Amino acid sequence: MKKVIGFGDYIMRLNPEGYLKFIQANKFEVFYTGAEANVCTSLSYMGIPTQFVTRLPENMISECALATLKRFSVGTDHIAFGGERIGLFYLEKGASQRPSKIVYDRKYSSFSDSKSCDYDWKTIMQDAEHFHFTGITPALGENLAEICIEACKTAKELGLTVSCDLNYRKNLWSKADAKATMEKLLKYVDVLIANEEDAADVLDIHASNTDIISGKLDRNGYIEVADKIAKKYNIDTVAITLRKSISASDNDWSALLYRGGKAYFSKEYHIHLVDRVGGGDSFGAGLIYGLLNGFDEQKTIEYAAAASCLKQTIELDVNLSKPDDILALVGGDGSGRVQR
Amino acid sequence: MKKVIGFGDYIMRLNPEGYLKFIQANKFEVFYTGAEANVCTSLSYMGIPTQFVTRLPENMISECALATLKRFSVGTDHIAFGGERIGLFYLEKGASQRPSKIVYDRKYSSFSDSKSCDYDWKTIMQDAEHFHFTGITPALGENLAEICIEACKTAKELGLTVSCDLNYRKNLWSKADAKATMEKLLKYVDVLIANEEDAADVLDIHASNTDIISGKLDRNGYIEVADKIAKKYNIDTVAITLRKSISASDNDWSALLYRGGKAYFSKEYHIHLVDRVGGGDSFGAGLIYGLLNGFDEQKTIEYAAAASCLKQTIELDVNLSKPDDILALVGGDGSGRVQR
Amino acid sequence: MKKVIGFGDYIMRLNPEGYLKFIQANKFEVFYTGAEANVCTSLSYMGIPTQFVTRLPENMISECALATLKRFSVGTDHIAFGGERIGLFYLEKGASQRPSKIVYDRKYSSFSDSKSCDYDWKTIMQDAEHFHFTGITPALGENLAEICIEACKTAKELGLTVSCDLNYRKNLWSKADAKATMEKLLKYVDVLIANEEDAADVLDIHASNTDIISGKLDRNGYIEVADKIAKKYNIDTVAITLRKSISASDNDWSALLYRGGKAYFSKEYHIHLVDRVGGGDSFGAGLIYGLLNGFDEQKTIEYAAAASCLKQTIELDVNLSKPDDILALVGGDGSGRVQR
Amino acid sequence: MKKVIGFGDYIMRLNPEGYLKFIQANKFEVFYTGAEANVCTSLSYMGIPTQFVTRLPENMISECALATLKRFSVGTDHIAFGGERIGLFYLEKGASQRPSKIVYDRKYSSFSDSKSCDYDWKTIMQDAEHFHFTGITPALGENLAEICIEACKTAKELGLTVSCDLNYRKNLWSKADAKATMEKLLKYVDVLIANEEDAADVLDIHASNTDIISGKLDRNGYIEVADKIAKKYNIDTVAITLRKSISASDNDWSALLYRGGKAYFSKEYHIHLVDRVGGGDSFGAGLIYGLLNGFDEQKTIEYAAAASCLKQTIELDVNLSKPDDILALVGGDGSGRVQR
Amino acid sequence: MKKVIGFGDYIMRLNPEGYLKFIQANKFEVFYTGAEANVCTSLSYMGIPTQFVTRLPENMISECALATLKRFSVGTDHIAFGGERIGLFYLEKGASQRPSKIVYDRKYSSFSDSKSCDYDWKTIMQDAEHFHFTGITPALGENLAEICIEACKTAKELGLTVSCDLNYRKNLWSKADAKATMEKLLKYVDVLIANEEDAADVLDIHASNTDIISGKLDRNGYIEVADKIAKKYNIDTVAITLRKSISASDNDWSALLYRGGKAYFSKEYHIHLVDRVGGGDSFGAGLIYGLLNGFDEQKTIEYAAAASCLKQTIELDVNLSKPDDILALVGGDGSGRVQR
Amino acid sequence: MKKVIGFGDYIMRLNPEGYLKFIQANKFEVFYTGAEANVCTSLSYMGIPTQFVTRLPENMISECALATLKRFSVGTDHIAFGGERIGLFYLEKGASQRPSKIVYDRKYSSFSDSKSCDYDWKTIMQDAEHFHFTGITPALGENLAEICIEACKTAKELGLTVSCDLNYRKNLWSKADAKATMEKLLKYVDVLIANEEDAADVLDIHASNTDIISGKLDRNGYIEVADKIAKKYNIDTVAITLRKSISASDNDWSALLYRGGKAYFSKEYHIHLVDRVGGGDSFGAGLIYGLLNGFDEQKTIEYAAAASCLKQTIELDVNLSKPDDILALVGGDGSGRVQR
Repeated sequence: MKKVIGFGDYIMRLNPEGYLKFIQANKFEVFYTGAEANVCTSLSYMGIPTQFVTRLPENMISECALATLKRFSVGTDHIAFGGERIGLFYLEKGASQRPSKIVYDRKYSSFSDSKSCDYDWKTIMQDAEHFHFTGITPALGENLAEICIEACKTAKELGLTVSCDLNYRKNLWSKADAKATMEKLLKYVDVLIANEEDAADVLDIHASNTDIISGKLDRNGYIEVADKIAKKYNIDTVAITLRKSISASDNDWSALLYRGGKAYFSKEYHIHLVDRVGGGDSFGAGLIYGLLNGFDEQKTIEYAAAASCLKQTIELDVNLSKPDDILALVGGDGSGRVQR
Repeated sequence: MKKVIGFGDYIMRLNPEGYLKFIQANKFEVFYTGAEANVCTSLSYMGIPTQFVTRLPENMISECALATLKRFSVGTDHIAFGGERIGLFYLEKGASQRPSKIVYDRKYSSFSDSKSCDYDWKTIMQDAEHFHFTGITPALGENLAEICIEACKTAKELGLTVSCDLNYRKNLWSKADAKATMEKLLKYVDVLIANEEDAADVLDIHASNTDIISGKLDRNGYIEVADKIAKKYNIDTVAITLRKSISASDNDWSALLYRGGKAYFSKEYHIHLVDRVGGGDSFGAGLIYGLLNGFDEQKTIEYAAAASCLKQTIELDVNLSKPDDILALVGGDGSGRVQR
Repeated sequence: MKKVIGFGDYIMRLNPEGYLKFIQANKFEVFYTGAEANVCTSLSYMGIPTQFVTRLPENMISECALATLKRFSVGTDHIAFGGERIGLFYLEKGASQRPSKIVYDRKYSSFSDSKSCDYDWKTIMQDAEHFHFTGITPALGENLAEICIEACKTAKELGLTVSCDLNYRKNLWSKADAKATMEKLLKYVDVLIANEEDAADVLDIHASNTDIISGKLDRNGYIEVADKIAKKYNIDTVAITLRKSISASDNDWSALLYRGGKAYFSKEYHIHLVDRVGGGDSFGAGLIYGLLNGFDEQKTIEYAAAASCLKQTIELDVNLSKPDDILALVGGDGSGRVQR
Repeated sequence: MKKVIGFGDYIMRLNPEGYLKFIQANKFEVFYTGAEANVCTSLSYMGIPTQFVTRLPENMISECALATLKRFSVGTDHIAFGGERIGLFYLEKGASQRPSKIVYDRKYSSFSDSKSCDYDWKTIMQDAEHFHFTGITPALGENLAEICIEACKTAKELGLTVSCDLNYRKNLWSKADAKATMEKLLKYVDVLIANEEDAADVLDIHASNTDIISGKLDRNGYIEVADKIAKKYNIDTVAITLRKSISASDNDWSALLYRGGKAYFSKEYHIHLVDRVGGGDSFGAGLIYGLLNGFDEQKTIEYAAAASCLKQTIELDVNLSKPDDILALVGGDGSGRVQR
Repeated sequence: MKKVIGFGDYIMRLNPEGYLKFIQANKFEVFYTGAEANVCTSLSYMGIPTQFVTRLPENMISECALATLKRFSVGTDHIAFGGERIGLFYLEKGASQRPSKIVYDRKYSSFSDSKSCDYDWKTIMQDAEHFHFTGITPALGENLAEICIEACKTAKELGLTVSCDLNYRKNLWSKADAKATMEKLLKYVDVLIANEEDAADVLDIHASNTDIISGKLDRNGYIEVADKIAKKYNIDTVAITLRKSISASDNDWSALLYRGGKAYFSKEYHIHLVDRVGGGDSFGAGLIYGLLNGFDEQKTIEYAAAASCLKQTIELDVNLSKPDDILALVGGDGSGRVQR
Repeated sequence: MKKVIGFGDYIMRLNPEGYLKFIQANKFEVFYTGAEANVCTSLSYMGIPTQFVTRLPENMISECALATLKRFSVGTDHIAFGGERIGLFYLEKGASQRPSKIVYDRKYSSFSDSKSCDYDWKTIMQDAEHFHFTGITPALGENLAEICIEACKTAKELGLTVSCDLNYRKNLWSKADAKATMEKLLKYVDVLIANEEDAADVLDIHASNTDIISGKLDRNGYIEVADKIAKKYNIDTVAITLRKSISASDNDWSALLYRGGKAYFSKEYHIHLVDRVGGGDSFGAGLIYGLLNGFDEQKTIEYAAAASCLKQTIELDVNLSKPDDILALVGGDGSGRVQR
């Protein structure tokens, strides 16, 4: 199978153990993560060849980051080196009514300091069939927005499918900036992933009758949003994740695939959360897996939803689920019985 | 803002990690706690100046206890030193149908051996506006009951508000002794905190139609209890916490404020518990915070209930929540979404 | 009270901490376990004298295994020594929709290599009143099936009650082999424990209208199964556990005792699981405890169900609950309130 | 082989992990220990049947303590129950120039509250051949001094060998009190264990030319001390441990056996310490083991010294070394090469 | 006693547990540290009032940093808030021939972004008697060099003693820049602390016949260096630490105080290292403590050397030793015997 | 650079944390290791392309083992799958006079069950320049001895250098069997690694005047052994490691390279051990690195000795040292000073 290319930042996650708050911790668990890296890792774990493209400083911490990618068979052939630091964030895991909290410290990272010449897209995309990025990458600076456009252009020239997860981060850029830049990029995008907040924040497209905090969602509202996106940006495939946050411990989770004017909803899962970070990335990976394997629309969205459901029962940011496990859940076995 | 004085024992909590039983543990987590200390710590964390008054032995373990108070900005200027030991208890955290268990070893503590001359209340209460104690303090010995009365008298002389949490502990004294002593102290109390078990056990005041184990509670019963207490003891403000124990993992939690003949109920929270110990103390702190800040009755009880809800999603005995977090929950956001 | 004899393999359990997957772990928790050993340990912890009979290699790891039994007062007087290794399995604990997974590595164990001369049943069963084994023991080899028959014969000669938990393990033998061997053994069995899967897999006896995965169970179906077993194999007492797997985090759990043509159902518990492994073994221990203590049928099945409910709120494979705790739950207190 | 009886307090040890100071710790490792219990545990681990006699409160913490004894096959048949608490101490492990520190909290323990009727020495000492106690036991109160005398008298009546380790603890009693009481007890003692500090502090018998802090020791001085003790108190066998404290990380360690007017010195070991607590207890156990097995004097002292050397390379208070390991070290292999 | 002011960066230390290398770690221990903060913490722990002055971002991680200072009673009244991030470094602890390694990520910190107006030195230094900074502070930027000069000028105006530790960090600035800036600052310095590498690198003053790597040091060479510094920069008191690195596990450590043309050498300690980071800071604190308490020169340098010896037997960067412990070591007890 | 092929078993290492004994542990650290795998991992970490060839079962534990290889960039392209289990061993780390202990459980492993058809040596060795195996591989069964011969023959046909570490394991085969088989294999070996025990045990070649336990070694004796081996088996390059076991905590370590009739000794290192397991493997990797890079004999043996010295200061079995670190130690810097 031809390979998938992901492009984005790769940063360190530091979190207290269990449900401790920052102020209670004297140890942090360390993991390396990034929206696009998580997609690549999840795909690699499912057996798809990948290359993750980023830029890292030349130091011993980068070595640890690289080893994490290699451990999960993610290709690192095209990673650029240079710059000052690896970005990081601190995560405090919430529970019940207490929300999870993130403190970011990702400015001045080697990746945000990328230059166009760090990435030779023609070489990178050789023998590839899919290119994936998220809204975080262009948000890290004008240079990265430019490089994203270059990457997308090359991808289209070489016949790759391009997928993008809107992934709006309000502490990285304003809604206005996000809209201006993302609209330039959406021209090249074949598969768009969003949740309804992203759609509203970045694209100013709104679902009717939705109340995020109360968790009341309306199916028709989502179809409406997907349809508007598909039409306005001429995007073939739009996927929307539907999270009902009951609390930091329990969420309902499902998703919608919109294609050819038709909407396909997945089953809804009631998830008792282990770690919800990376849920969206694992959805993206599941979706790409379905598309690459030629699953039909319903199976594709079921696979993506089940993959991201399982992710949220797994510690850390990455979905370490095999296709067999995901398909078993798609097939209806969410009973959690012991497999001997 | 003027400061709050808390007076009580400060003891070591030793608990196995996670949900291990005592018999499975070869490590104990160590924390320092006490009903009144927890109220002070929670208030300090919310930005209120506090002084916690207790008596500790002169050894390296006390130094650790003191450092815990200082870490959270609780004033330690008036702590007395002397005596033999710091009290302690062992806590085994329950889950689902399995109850949490506590083994106490707090006799002969430096605090229980307090003498009147250890505490110069005039000096201690200078520039203070609130004095808080719980039923545990006078339960530790006649000397402490006497010292409590002295403290209360001074408080009233100096114009402080006095709050008391009934906090009945059956292994410290009999119901009869508790009633006799607490009735002497209630003369000085402006704000009384109780749950309906305490009211029944200590004051022999009963709610109609309540069944603690089954978790069936009746709102009118609670109003009735509060009203009886307010009238019998001439207490301005009575607050009652309402816990429905579904299991050791899940509780419903709300509270009632009774003042001026009117009852104010908070919202009810379904809590997936992280650590329920200290729930009552965090409620007391929330209540005092509301009173000190001049919140109206409804806002006060909502704040106190939300504060104590959040506490129960946090490990260990102390509510490490900022007013912003508590007010966000009061305002309706218990969805636990990640805050980036 | 006379003692209970358990006979079976004793193996090492290795599991990642918390909810980590194998691939995420660089530490394993170590415990020693086995279906019959767990029954003995649970009974010892409830105050019943026991002897656990197995065969272990002569090395330092066996010493650890032995120490685990001794720690919980299980008699080890008749354990045979020799052979090459202690068996083991790796357990990955699931959560929500993600199932727990077990990788077995128990072949070639010292126990599976047992010879008839390793066990002098006359001596072992002296002063005993109950003999317990499960379907795992004869599944480990023809030699063990033979030894089981010898043990059962001696038990009947000496007047012991014989109990057996079907405990079908598909990776140890085929359904056909299991049926052929177990039917030889059932001749000696007075008390049979099963779940409806085991009954179907081993005995080819089926409940009507049951759908394991969906969790829909039908009471009459279970009575039907119990009745068929009792009649076909002439077994006095049949006990069936009823698990509704909602997810890997939440299960409903109850049980049925069938005796003298009458069915006794226990209460059903909604369990928020801590560790479900060993649930069946703790049920067996609870059942034997009830029988040994002459509880009536309803109390016996309530005790067994409550015991196994509590087990599933405790880490690792063994039920460390005292009769008082179990009887409190039988009596209706599953509220999990703190016991001070 | 006939059994060994130990009599003393059994208390909880709480220590920070590794080399952390108290003030740095938020976890304590938990272990149960006591000078005489450690002797019994070490002997049991070497294959000698033992019974440890103490008094414990009836609570869940005692259950943990008991399980520790049972785990290592120490007999618990004659332990009395009652009283208020288990004693405890906090241990901070030193390193290099930084000394280890202990904070005691052992007053009011169930054991210190023992009454004569708690121990039926005739029954306890049936089938026993050795009785061991240390100077800590009579130091815990006059009642315990009395009970010790009763135990010693019974021991002599029944023909047991009596051994005593002086074990002077300055925070338990004064030198004068220790001398008065111990001299009463030494009448019954056949084997006395001491270090030269104990001999000086308790018996006022001094070695010439010794400087503890500088670590300079003089062999003749020790022989002189042993000889004086043997003669003054008419004691057959006197054993003295010789510790040269180079630092908290490195000690030199050897011992002297004095019997029949002759002195036998063991080899000296340079120990890179893992945990020096319990070194003396393991020496006592080694000595008793040698005497029980009829080793000659030189072999006995070599065995005891090697046993206690190995203990100090093992975490926690108890020597978990088998006779084969100890004899290998006696035989000259201290090279620490991997044993496959 | 009047207070000591420290001024410098406060950064996060992240290190793998024990002796793990970065590449082996999936957890980091977290601590907050800084050369001047460590001096303040150590002094506070010895009972000296201190205020540590720095600048921190307004986020939850700063809250943890602040709580660390408060825990150890370091005053935080004059800490400025603002800027983007807290600096950090990664530390891998070496052993034997393997050196410790540090990866810095401290650029763009809130402190390095300090402005003159962040610090009102007149107010800060009120009621203070000592001001301490190190060469790290001016190395963080020209703004900080300027602020240092302002602080020094105010200190001299207000009659404070000024101490400075050269603390040259080659990755922060060049030798030439360091020399130019430090020479401006040395005008205000009364007490200079250095090791011979710093003296050579920053001041271009060299000891004769020294070979750092081989560990051969020459006393006269050090006197020569101290004398040159004292004379060239007109500094009253010069203190030099003398480290002989035998390996990452074992160091010899002593120090020299030079004052009034006379040299005072401390004892030399052979340290089996627990954590050598912060050794120099604890020396500075010890020196200041001696000066503040009016110790004579020999006692001062003995105290400073013993303090820093003990630090290196303690985990993390801060010397948590009380004056009694330090004076005991000065007095000759480095035997590490257990203190009960 | 052309690649290095390693061939051998890959097994799980389970060890208690720190210096705990098996009987004290309730957690095991997990690592995957094997003599030849360690050589490959070390070489990969130094930048040499490698392929490790083994056979693993198809289960989730193998997945973890594979991920460990991939993490360190070891090629896994030619690993065969099948068979029943991954072998394992339990390791208890010793200290001071207490030796480390290993309990093996590696029989019936997938690798020991290898068949000739599992390995296509022509393909595997394409583009390779070095083949490495140890005496453990042929010791695992006649099939593996045969496969080793096939591999060696192919290696010689394709012009690869063949290196072998004698690595005698007495619990795998007798000295006689080892001699018979290894002599068949030595025909193909260009580089032989041994210690003097292996030479004596396997080849019956003895050093004069050596006493392993006492640690007295004689240089001429080693030259004599190397010379005999080189001549008898016509081997170009013989390398011998020289370990003086002072204790389980301290070893002296050096090595000898013998080539063209000349002996080259490395420096001797006094190592304060962190983990000595894998010392020999890291020596082999260092030696091969030197040979591949065309170092002269003295530099080669210095590099190999320094590499294996550093390994023994690192936890677990693998040398995670970069050439720069090793060359710095060769160059004389073993002072362990912090590298910032």
